[in-house]
Amino acid sequence: MTDSTSTYDALLAALHSVLGDAGLVLTGEAMSPYCVDWRGEFGAPALAVARPKTVDQVSAVVRVCAERNIAIVPQGGNTSLAGGAVPIAGRAQIVLSLSRMKAIRAIDPVGMTMTAEAGVVLETVQEAAREHELLFPISFAAQGSSQIGGIISTNAGGINVLRYGMTRQRVLGLEAVLADGSIVEGLRHLHKDNAGYDWKQLLIGAEGTLGIVTAASLRLAPRPKHKITAFLAVPDPESALALLRHATAQLGDAIAAFELISPSALALVKQHFGLKPPMEMQSWAVLIEAAASLSGLRDAMEAALTMALEAGDASDGVIAETEAQAAALWALREHVTEAELKSGRSVKHDVSVPINRIPDFIRDATSALHNAFDGLQLVVFGHVGDGNVHFNVLGAAVEAKAAINRVVHDVVAGHQGSISAEHGIGSYRVSELAHYKQPSQLTLMRTLKRALDPSNIFNPGKVLNDGRSFSEK
Amino acid sequence: MTDSTSTYDALLAALHSVLGDAGLVLTGEAMSPYCVDWRGEFGAPALAVARPKTVDQVSAVVRVCAERNIAIVPQGGNTSLAGGAVPIAGRAQIVLSLSRMKAIRAIDPVGMTMTAEAGVVLETVQEAAREHELLFPISFAAQGSSQIGGIISTNAGGINVLRYGMTRQRVLGLEAVLADGSIVEGLRHLHKDNAGYDWKQLLIGAEGTLGIVTAASLRLAPRPKHKITAFLAVPDPESALALLRHATAQLGDAIAAFELISPSALALVKQHFGLKPPMEMQSWAVLIEAAASLSGLRDAMEAALTMALEAGDASDGVIAETEAQAAALWALREHVTEAELKSGRSVKHDVSVPINRIPDFIRDATSALHNAFDGLQLVVFGHVGDGNVHFNVLGAAVEAKAAINRVVHDVVAGHQGSISAEHGIGSYRVSELAHYKQPSQLTLMRTLKRALDPSNIFNPGKVLNDGRSFSEK
Repeated sequence: MTDSTSTYDALLAALHSVLGDAGLVLTGEAMSPYCVDWRGEFGAPALAVARPKTVDQVSAVVRVCAERNIAIVPQGGNTSLAGGAVPIAGRAQIVLSLSRMKAIRAIDPVGMTMTAEAGVVLETVQEAAREHELLFPISFAAQGSSQIGGIISTNAGGINVLRYGMTRQRVLGLEAVLADGSIVEGLRHLHKDNAGYDWKQLLIGAEGTLGIVTAASLRLAPRPKHKITAFLAVPDPESALALLRHATAQLGDAIAAFELISPSALALVKQHFGLKPPMEMQSWAVLIEAAASLSGLRDAMEAALTMALEAGDASDGVIAETEAQAAALWALREHVTEAELKSGRSVKHDVSVPINRIPDFIRDATSALHNAFDGLQLVVFGHVGDGNVHFNVLGAAVEAKAAINRVVHDVVAGHQGSISAEHGIGSYRVSELAHYKQPSQLTLMRTLKRALDPSNIFNPGKVLNDGRSFSEK
Repeated sequence: MTDSTSTYDALLAALHSVLGDAGLVLTGEAMSPYCVDWRGEFGAPALAVARPKTVDQVSAVVRVCAERNIAIVPQGGNTSLAGGAVPIAGRAQIVLSLSRMKAIRAIDPVGMTMTAEAGVVLETVQEAAREHELLFPISFAAQGSSQIGGIISTNAGGINVLRYGMTRQRVLGLEAVLADGSIVEGLRHLHKDNAGYDWKQLLIGAEGTLGIVTAASLRLAPRPKHKITAFLAVPDPESALALLRHATAQLGDAIAAFELISPSALALVKQHFGLKPPMEMQSWAVLIEAAASLSGLRDAMEAALTMALEAGDASDGVIAETEAQAAALWALREHVTEAELKSGRSVKHDVSVPINRIPDFIRDATSALHNAFDGLQLVVFGHVGDGNVHFNVLGAAVEAKAAINRVVHDVVAGHQGSISAEHGIGSYRVSELAHYKQPSQLTLMRTLKRALDPSNIFNPGKVLNDGRSFSEK
């Protein structure tokens, strides 16, 4: 028996004494779904997969690993688009899956709050809220498998950010385990709490590198009684911004989604799924949805459309008359990603810029790419109401990927934007973050990481990967 | 010339070389408004008051002080209710007033954002937003003198939190100076940005103990076109919660304020200002305001009132027909604090509890106080829609203040509430925070303080004051 074997056996014995058989996955085959991301792009082997059932077990697992300098990769639904939730090579590590912590501990319909454990699937939270005529408004494609701990650790966005904010704005309190195994229990249901540093904010969006979220108090919203959906053809992105002003003037903050779709994206959706806009059009499109408990949505939407058509900011538009029509309009937007997938490998960019810079960003990034590369096709869509553009590139050679990223991100940086609007850094964008982030901010990030996780055992290599700061084993 | 004189002279010379005559206040008389809070309850002398005009000057002042281990008390409008913005005794220190940094650097009406320096007065920000038909929704009594840096550092609340959130939710980016003098420039106008740790969240609400906010990107909101205000007599706080459910069902998140006022508070307002409710009543009152760009507010408010009256959750109610009537209803609420002041010294509590615990909290705290003390009069009011209760005690002996705090805060803790909903910790509540906060959370707070301000030069003795952690000179 070698030393490393006995070290390994001792680790497993210690983990087993905490977790039992039910909480420990050890065979390569059983571990593999935890060790590679859903697209098969990221991953590395782990020594074990721990599946604790309680916060005390999470704490005990962290202590076992901290003593041995074994890294821990926290994982929820494993739906990261940035390789944030699976191991990367170079470190002795385990995956810590929160998926067995799936209790909804409490719902308060008067205060409109819920306490959910990290492993509760997002859709389950949405449904539990709906049973009380309430809404948990975080919503995106992977909601059937992503988990609360993951959406908090990545500050997930989605289609309702314009009206309801990112996940950060829905979190009232957290329970978490820190790198020394200590449990911080801040599961408050308070809308106002200025008693001391709001440490939970630091864990939200830290991608599991500063602490492990085990449960959260969530802020629900009143479920709007009315909804209206419209689809417009607009001449160009500038017109979309003018339309946003018309819509804001009429609908105020009842606007829940304001999505821009490029002609190329609509063409791909038609080509692969046979879905077509409700009118003849070759131009850019905008999908607007508004929701409210008050009446008056339709009048306001009609007024906005009339203003836009009269001003030439839209050439045509329809308002959905039925739920089925609204769903058909949304299908045009929601099939873009799959249509893109069917068209071949794409180089994706999840960027944001100030809203008034969106037209310039799209123009500048497009021309910069066409100047630098031949034969590219651009698929542009996104949540324009909140400045988030998905700017994806088809037809690129595999080896051109990094160069394409650099061209697009340079344009983003020139417009004071972000290279990751909602998908996070994960392992995918670590070097891009290091390239673009202001040095004093990177230093501050490292200071925080070192303070909270001095041995770098939490999700090493994600968000930050600085050889000068952390010696990896 | 003694050593301390020469040290003092060297400090002043160094500050003068950064700030010039215009940026340095040195005489005792001129410094005194900076060294005592507006109620005259907190304060201590300072060696100097620095009034920098630029972020580079702030950085240079911090370096000058850091080299000499001189503490820095950052100050905005000096409107703290918790002694958070003035020196406390026991440390060689200067006040750093941000009030000369008062430029509004940019406004983007399309993206609905503004960049303002720390010294811009809140009301000035509100007015600048109004010029573009937009709203900066943070609003409270001291808005004519409180400054942006201060409201961010204290995560100010106010009367619109229910609809628009605390100050934290209006901050898109910060520029700040850290304890080593480094400048972090994160003035982004992005609604979505998941590129790295969101370090600004840590400075928001840290009361100047972790960094000095010098400018901010603010998120504005569409200005609602319609508003409606109602005033109801309700039998008790339980009925107020039932009324909140009726109002939420009808008005959704258009509800902007939902204020509860105790009979004793109304009686004081009548006694000192001659202001009376629009109906004969002896009971508790609720003031509701809702705002939206959509029509339909009046129908929804009438439906809510009808439901409440039919269910017996309200005994009477009026809806304001004019702006003047609405102002008269608000005057009943807004004069409570001044009426209380005219009634003598009060022991104030700015607490929050989960919304569904409010009636139990009021009942339990009231009986606990009456059991422990004789002759007290309770004045209860607050932003019930967000769980924030101002629970103030008249008629107490000066020496009973700490004991009264303890009784009320014990009840708050028993209901999983917060001892500071919106006023912050400052120096006033430092020992209360240490008493009630979970030890692992206090440890985490100290870890963060030590990481960002290892020499404890930023606002020492505020929020945390732990002799074990920081040796004061």
